[in-house]
Amino acid sequence: MYAVRHSGTAHFADTSTPGPAASQLGMRRHNLALVLRIVATHTDLSRADVAARTGLTRAAVSSLVDELIAAELVREGPTASSGRAGRPGRTLTLNDSGPAGFGLEIGVGHLGACVVDLRGEVRVWRRVERANAHRDPADVLAALADLATEARTEAESSGLRPLSPMLSAPGLSGPGPAMLTHAPNLGWHDVPIATLWPGPDTPQLENEANLGALAELWTAHAPANFLHVSAEAGIGAALVIDGRLYSGSRGFAGELGHMPVHPDGPHCTCGSRGCLELYANQEAVLHAAGLPEPTATDPVTVLTEHARAGHPGALDAIERAGDALGIALAGAIGLFDPAAVILGGAYAELGAWLLPRIRRQLETRLTVRPFDVQTVTASPLGRRGPILGAALHTIREILRNPAALG
Amino acid sequence: MYAVRHSGTAHFADTSTPGPAASQLGMRRHNLALVLRIVATHTDLSRADVAARTGLTRAAVSSLVDELIAAELVREGPTASSGRAGRPGRTLTLNDSGPAGFGLEIGVGHLGACVVDLRGEVRVWRRVERANAHRDPADVLAALADLATEARTEAESSGLRPLSPMLSAPGLSGPGPAMLTHAPNLGWHDVPIATLWPGPDTPQLENEANLGALAELWTAHAPANFLHVSAEAGIGAALVIDGRLYSGSRGFAGELGHMPVHPDGPHCTCGSRGCLELYANQEAVLHAAGLPEPTATDPVTVLTEHARAGHPGALDAIERAGDALGIALAGAIGLFDPAAVILGGAYAELGAWLLPRIRRQLETRLTVRPFDVQTVTASPLGRRGPILGAALHTIREILRNPAALG
Repeated sequence: MYAVRHSGTAHFADTSTPGPAASQLGMRRHNLALVLRIVATHTDLSRADVAARTGLTRAAVSSLVDELIAAELVREGPTASSGRAGRPGRTLTLNDSGPAGFGLEIGVGHLGACVVDLRGEVRVWRRVERANAHRDPADVLAALADLATEARTEAESSGLRPLSPMLSAPGLSGPGPAMLTHAPNLGWHDVPIATLWPGPDTPQLENEANLGALAELWTAHAPANFLHVSAEAGIGAALVIDGRLYSGSRGFAGELGHMPVHPDGPHCTCGSRGCLELYANQEAVLHAAGLPEPTATDPVTVLTEHARAGHPGALDAIERAGDALGIALAGAIGLFDPAAVILGGAYAELGAWLLPRIRRQLETRLTVRPFDVQTVTASPLGRRGPILGAALHTIREILRNPAALG
Repeated sequence: MYAVRHSGTAHFADTSTPGPAASQLGMRRHNLALVLRIVATHTDLSRADVAARTGLTRAAVSSLVDELIAAELVREGPTASSGRAGRPGRTLTLNDSGPAGFGLEIGVGHLGACVVDLRGEVRVWRRVERANAHRDPADVLAALADLATEARTEAESSGLRPLSPMLSAPGLSGPGPAMLTHAPNLGWHDVPIATLWPGPDTPQLENEANLGALAELWTAHAPANFLHVSAEAGIGAALVIDGRLYSGSRGFAGELGHMPVHPDGPHCTCGSRGCLELYANQEAVLHAAGLPEPTATDPVTVLTEHARAGHPGALDAIERAGDALGIALAGAIGLFDPAAVILGGAYAELGAWLLPRIRRQLETRLTVRPFDVQTVTASPLGRRGPILGAALHTIREILRNPAALG
């Protein structure tokens, strides 16, 4: 019932076995990442500045910087304006024309490709509207591979070198690499992405809700602990803990769509009753609004247009979705105690109408441990989150462990 | 909606800044903990065996072992029966008469003190039935300090050296050290434990639900990710992630008692409606069973006795509590994807009647990502969990970071 307010760092024992014995090689790898991280998060630093900040010797820093330059991760620019005494050094910056992150996306109604440079800037952005649901996966993947080739060519013409791509898909992957086991909104099951991919550059697969959450973390200054809730055709949630996506013991964490909101409510297709999806997914909201499922137009655009025009059915339906989300989030926030809740995807676009209802539910229901409802916000990334997350993922991996680029 | 099945280790980037530059001192501390951990988790190892397991040189291991022996953490016993060629070494074991963990407990109806040796064996166990609710905190703490002195004396007579104690209390602590801010079942608010403590050995304060969860982790071979749900007067939950208690962004994680189970249900004292506590806390179950709140006897004992005798009201009430717990746990398991759910405290004693109902709810409601309901179990520790967790906590801290013992 009562958790304890910890003073910053968790003070409980880590009962896992410590890692292997520390080694010189491990130290060098650690320090390489440290130097790269410092270069990435500061401007106008010279080698001497990096030495001062890390406590490493100038010689050690120079050797590490040389390695980072050789890997095309870092560039040495003009003289630093540090204003300090002594010979001014040259500024170190992330290389904006070296290795680059590469994201691909399959949506129900579009395909996308995106290249970001090491600084996280979007350099190539391609999106094609295309109905993919219930299409032959091989055809869809062929079209995506073409789009990927175009994006790669464009990136290379700017001197970028896109790494192996990561693919965002609205489904569940595994157990093998690049196997899309369950993507109901596409009507796909057990699609072997790796086998069907026509090009040489087989993408790594990740779920769109997870990638959307990571995009928040990487671009929008989200706190280290937050809950990301998004909706495309279904409802996706992701828990970020200490700056990392928490995937659960089986990789299933973040299931919010089938949280029982009204346990004696209507039957859900999952077999349970009163699940959040019945009140707050796209189809449910369209149905409650008395609007037909659009075939040509994007359903979220239909909803936002109706809401903006003051359509009473649409407003009612969205607000009821907000109430249901608020009830589910009251439970989730109580359990998880996030520093923020970020609405992504379609929810972000409906934020103006959803947020007041969500916040009212939370104000009423979270009283024992009050929660600042203003920390529930709509993401500025909206539906661009997952593909940005896919592209950013690979470069963040490099920043974390540059030795792996080798 | 769909999380991805990860292959063992999380593969997402840690976007937090890397720690300070690795140092020789840090390496030695790391390796000291590594050697201690290996001694703690194996039997019959010699210095040479430890060297083989860690990849450290024999000289390095010997120096580390000498340091651990000097700190009274490790003992060198008879010759190891490793059966390997070469001169057999002497076996290394945790010292069972050196530093010891020391747990204290304030319950609504009792006080407790417990000393465990480095191996986690209970060496001193004292429990005094005593009505503490709405008593003067200074009087209660004076009685507890007396009990603590007796326990310490008994431990010292066996050659043990109890470390500074940790106090388990049914409440919320902080922000300062040893301030019990909110313990409604004791009727206490803002009790400055550190100021009122009459002895020299001021305990560190921790919440009983968290300590109960840690006791499971440390003694009952719980998996690295689990949810612990316990009930004394209130309902307490704790999330253990990767072998560590997850405390949330403000230290409030694990609030399950006010999860909305029937959001349009009866009003709760918290201001919300249909909270789990209204169906599943001790008072609610007694009331639903038509049993008076006992004044002399322990309420859980009253309930178990009635249930065992087939009292229909008691059975109905406990089973309704099980249904409500099952609904709340369906939401919690969906979000958090634990490898197990462990019922502790009073719930453990009522497990025979609660578990079938909880499992039935989970079977019905967790179908998208099926969950093995047999992993929901009652803890064998029952209501002994929190004080064991308190005593074990300090020794686990030492095992994690022996250098801190000084």
